[in-house]
Amino acid sequence: MVGRAVVGQAGGPSAVINQSLVGVIQETVKYGHIQDLLGARHGVRGVVDENFVELKRQPSEMLELVATTPGAALGATRDRPDGEYCARMFEVFRKRNVRYFFYIGGNDSAESARIVQRIADEQKYDLCVIHIPKTIDNDLLATDHCPGYGTAAKFVTHAFMGDDLDNRALPGVKINILMGRRAGFLTAASILARQREDDGPHLVYVPERPFAIERFVDHVGESLERIGRCVVAVSEGIVNDAGELWVEKVSVLGQDKKLSRDAFGNLQLAIGSGSLADYLAGVIRNRFNRVMRVRADTFGYLQRSFAGFYSEVDAWEARLVGQMAVSYSLDGDRSGSVSLVRLPATTYAVGTRLVDLSEVAPDQPPKTRKLPDAFINAAGNNIDPSFREYVQPLVGTLPKVGWFERIE
Amino acid sequence: MVGRAVVGQAGGPSAVINQSLVGVIQETVKYGHIQDLLGARHGVRGVVDENFVELKRQPSEMLELVATTPGAALGATRDRPDGEYCARMFEVFRKRNVRYFFYIGGNDSAESARIVQRIADEQKYDLCVIHIPKTIDNDLLATDHCPGYGTAAKFVTHAFMGDDLDNRALPGVKINILMGRRAGFLTAASILARQREDDGPHLVYVPERPFAIERFVDHVGESLERIGRCVVAVSEGIVNDAGELWVEKVSVLGQDKKLSRDAFGNLQLAIGSGSLADYLAGVIRNRFNRVMRVRADTFGYLQRSFAGFYSEVDAWEARLVGQMAVSYSLDGDRSGSVSLVRLPATTYAVGTRLVDLSEVAPDQPPKTRKLPDAFINAAGNNIDPSFREYVQPLVGTLPKVGWFERIE
Repeated sequence: MVGRAVVGQAGGPSAVINQSLVGVIQETVKYGHIQDLLGARHGVRGVVDENFVELKRQPSEMLELVATTPGAALGATRDRPDGEYCARMFEVFRKRNVRYFFYIGGNDSAESARIVQRIADEQKYDLCVIHIPKTIDNDLLATDHCPGYGTAAKFVTHAFMGDDLDNRALPGVKINILMGRRAGFLTAASILARQREDDGPHLVYVPERPFAIERFVDHVGESLERIGRCVVAVSEGIVNDAGELWVEKVSVLGQDKKLSRDAFGNLQLAIGSGSLADYLAGVIRNRFNRVMRVRADTFGYLQRSFAGFYSEVDAWEARLVGQMAVSYSLDGDRSGSVSLVRLPATTYAVGTRLVDLSEVAPDQPPKTRKLPDAFINAAGNNIDPSFREYVQPLVGTLPKVGWFERIE
Repeated sequence: MVGRAVVGQAGGPSAVINQSLVGVIQETVKYGHIQDLLGARHGVRGVVDENFVELKRQPSEMLELVATTPGAALGATRDRPDGEYCARMFEVFRKRNVRYFFYIGGNDSAESARIVQRIADEQKYDLCVIHIPKTIDNDLLATDHCPGYGTAAKFVTHAFMGDDLDNRALPGVKINILMGRRAGFLTAASILARQREDDGPHLVYVPERPFAIERFVDHVGESLERIGRCVVAVSEGIVNDAGELWVEKVSVLGQDKKLSRDAFGNLQLAIGSGSLADYLAGVIRNRFNRVMRVRADTFGYLQRSFAGFYSEVDAWEARLVGQMAVSYSLDGDRSGSVSLVRLPATTYAVGTRLVDLSEVAPDQPPKTRKLPDAFINAAGNNIDPSFREYVQPLVGTLPKVGWFERIE
């Protein structure tokens, strides 16, 4: 089936989403089935606005630079198209003889892809829709892991290695809030930072287990008792025993009318994830009355965008899923999502397969993947060491650190 | 003068403070004037507690690993010794025949070093005290720049390069809070991230100029008008027109009694620098009523501790000042601080000189250095491009990024 193709990027950018884009471009050039490759500016928004860029004739040196650049070279979008929006997209596709749609993004993007594909089916228009996975949260269904996750996990690992050394130098309690609203994969990766028995993070809290202040205070107290310090990894998606997000509970304070007026000119105070960090630090500071350093940081966007820093494996796999999307489209008769499959081998190896869009974007919940129970300890405050085997190959080699043997 | 030496590390750790320590150790081994090199655990605290580690017999492979490890291998301290504390330090020195004291730290550490040296003088005890500069804030007097700054500036540059690309992908307002309570050097380094004309940061606020909400809102509005987005670098040390710290003004809300009780169990809310970010984001969110993404991050400790990441020049210079401290001590008759001097040359080159401790730790204010006026624009919301010449050599080569020429 010969026709045009559209490629787009969606959702939060990552350090390797441009690798997938470049994979699509480079593979497209190899074959004859795609006449023009149109890059949609800002994802589905660029489709309905017909804001396209021709990508087949971009110089290859420039493509290699784009590949290692964080962000989303075509621009991304937070638009979550409904049926009508997807119908408008389809009309643009039909008008321009677009026969292939490659969409790089998370499960929302897979859902958009699926709706467009369904409309094309109903209209008896041949359209091959391939979803290319991307999310630092690693919470997509039907894939071993997601491109973007390995690099974010590497960032988190390096951050905790350094932060734990900082905490050894000036002991106290340090709390770090990590990305991951629905799943604890990224927060769990922090345990890779541990090399010595008493290295941090000493406590790890993920959204998959309820978080209670009283238990948290007890856990920190035990760590202080044991080693005189405590480094904590907390997912921004932690919930209380009732299943409510802590970050929103804390924000309620900011929405309180009494708070909306302040000393600087009637400005409303908005409290976000930065305040979850400050809130938890405040709790610890108030419970331990002795002189104790308590600090908290929120890693924020650095986790997905730090320039010049990526996992080699993650970059390679992100390129691979882009290339494979075009390769799968050669048949032209099957839509789907490119899934990474971990091969049973003594050293790490992956393959890909094309899974149905309904596997990544099902009609019924759960629509995303949780951190498996086996990786979470019974107390719900730490990650099982077996998780290392899963995540280490995705992150790659860690920096070596040194310390004086007789010093502790 | 033959005797023992003590070396210690103080203040906030950095990515290269261990380079200076290793420089001291390696240079000490070369000469005969220092019988034993005692590492004081946690700086001056280790001196008064006589908590020492012998450092001359550490294996060299391990030393090289320690050198590239962030944190402070001997442990640091926030103790700021008074006269009595310094007198106790001196008694330990006299008792153990310590004739050399190398202290790696900021201006507080230089002041401690100076007090101890004065006591030794009064007691007619020959003691050579050498201060070795370290601070990511770059605010020490009498040196061109400070070891630790280059690596922190490199972190900030990479962070802004990535964050600006993220902001291009999903346009909106992004505010980043950077370290630097008294001086804007680190925040100013963010301008190195700019490569294209419309690259961020678009606004830069340093402690050297008063920060007012109304002006801030206007500046952001102008940027949104001009390019539809705005990336902002804000120093945690910004002050209002009355010279009061904004981070403390915002914290007042947290200390308000009405706020000290909340929905989760009578816990006091502590608001810190994370809330300065959230506060500024809230201001912008409320002033621009249209749909606009507004996010804020606080970079925090990552700026001084990210593992496996450093500026080569900074690492080399940190090693150099440690080595030169020992070299200067060979004379034995002169205390001082090791200052970095930028040589007049077409390519970047530095030398060192020993300056009097009173130059780094003067009796009268100013005791620290500010970002020079020439580097700050008239409106007080940006950094002059001439600052690049100062900071670029300290940071080193930046990652190359790519973009599609016909896009944007």
